[in-house]
Amino acid sequence: MPGCLSIVGLGPGAEGLLTDQVRAAISDASDAFGYFPYVDRLSSLQHLQLHASDNGEELSRASEALNRASTGRRVLLLSSGDPGVFAMASAVFEALQAASLEERERWSRVDIRVLPGITAMLAAAARLGAPLGHDFCAINLSDNLKPASVIERRVRLAAQADFAMAFYNPASRARPEGFARALRVLREECEPGRLICFARNVSRADETLCVHRLDAVDASMADMRTLVIVGNSLTQQVGRYVYTPRSYGGADHE
Amino acid sequence: MPGCLSIVGLGPGAEGLLTDQVRAAISDASDAFGYFPYVDRLSSLQHLQLHASDNGEELSRASEALNRASTGRRVLLLSSGDPGVFAMASAVFEALQAASLEERERWSRVDIRVLPGITAMLAAAARLGAPLGHDFCAINLSDNLKPASVIERRVRLAAQADFAMAFYNPASRARPEGFARALRVLREECEPGRLICFARNVSRADETLCVHRLDAVDASMADMRTLVIVGNSLTQQVGRYVYTPRSYGGADHE
Repeated sequence: MPGCLSIVGLGPGAEGLLTDQVRAAISDASDAFGYFPYVDRLSSLQHLQLHASDNGEELSRASEALNRASTGRRVLLLSSGDPGVFAMASAVFEALQAASLEERERWSRVDIRVLPGITAMLAAAARLGAPLGHDFCAINLSDNLKPASVIERRVRLAAQADFAMAFYNPASRARPEGFARALRVLREECEPGRLICFARNVSRADETLCVHRLDAVDASMADMRTLVIVGNSLTQQVGRYVYTPRSYGGADHE
Repeated sequence: MPGCLSIVGLGPGAEGLLTDQVRAAISDASDAFGYFPYVDRLSSLQHLQLHASDNGEELSRASEALNRASTGRRVLLLSSGDPGVFAMASAVFEALQAASLEERERWSRVDIRVLPGITAMLAAAARLGAPLGHDFCAINLSDNLKPASVIERRVRLAAQADFAMAFYNPASRARPEGFARALRVLREECEPGRLICFARNVSRADETLCVHRLDAVDASMADMRTLVIVGNSLTQQVGRYVYTPRSYGGADHE
């Protein structure tokens, strides 16, 4: 009997942000693989065999999940947020691409599904107002998997295109420099009043949100649990909300 | 008693893509405002007073929803996908910004919440594999609210930054030229083998998915119900899946 691998997004933390589809996949599964804190979120579920692993073991975790599914099990591979945004879905397809002939034959019988989730930038944007209400981009600031020069070039071109931007992984203990580097580029490309939003532990009980002008921001404001949103040149505040207007460059509203 | 306005994302169509939080808000509401087809999705719910309006009436719809909520009602404002991505959340904050003193005073008593949903590009990416698995951007190709020159410049800079791209509203009957214009820019900036994915009616019963090389794409492949995803220069296929690798530019995997 062929097994099934569901690569699922658990959302950023709040239970209410799970989709029905992901909840059903969890109920129906036999095994769950994932990074420790994501597996912990399912630790009360008695029907699941849990397989937690550490950060940085994405490719081997993907292979183990595929192996398990190929024995006929119904396997979850857990991501926080959305599995297709800086998360496990690409790792699974990389493992398929790198597979030996024997693995490829065996894994071809596995029914692979990607089940989307609420990614951190959209949860953060919703809590702030609508800072991503016009064209925007998502950039992972970690230089773990790409050179810092590529990141700097992308931030610069995104600023020149006047995209709003969401920064994932702005800083970590191992790689503290990401946000500081992006900030230097933003200071060269954007006006001092540009709005920058910080959403830490979004949707969780200890969530914090704050908004500053670019000229009041320093690099210590973002850590590994922070999602940073940079407004475009028209992003503004009304009351406690931050939003980016839908229209741009003189086009009429409606 | 103060009312409440929940700006909710219904996801791209499938019932299973609603979040628990949105489902609870729907159960708890008294009124629902939105574009006709979104209001239709709730037409079986007897407890809701439905207020459907046409496309292009976003600002007046936002004002009416705020007015209704200010009388103490529990009001939903419906978006497809995510309300913060080319949808109703920005329209509400624009209405707040443009409000008269009397409106501002009255609307200030309304508890406004934005409840995220699964936006079309992430639903489409999940069905295709993981084409947005590395840095990416989202561009609305409609020139309804911005000049075509801004769109062309953004597509060009995004290609030069080697972002994967999601195109919303690639073409409509009233504005058929959006995708054709973007395609001309992509042909100038990208290699002929660049992968372009078309997801039409994503997550619905009549969903169609297809993938072509840039040199085999023509503008008629996208209509108003299509979400287009352009890969970056490393996006590839493995079996029936399209994915963008997590690493870039010579950085090591793990």
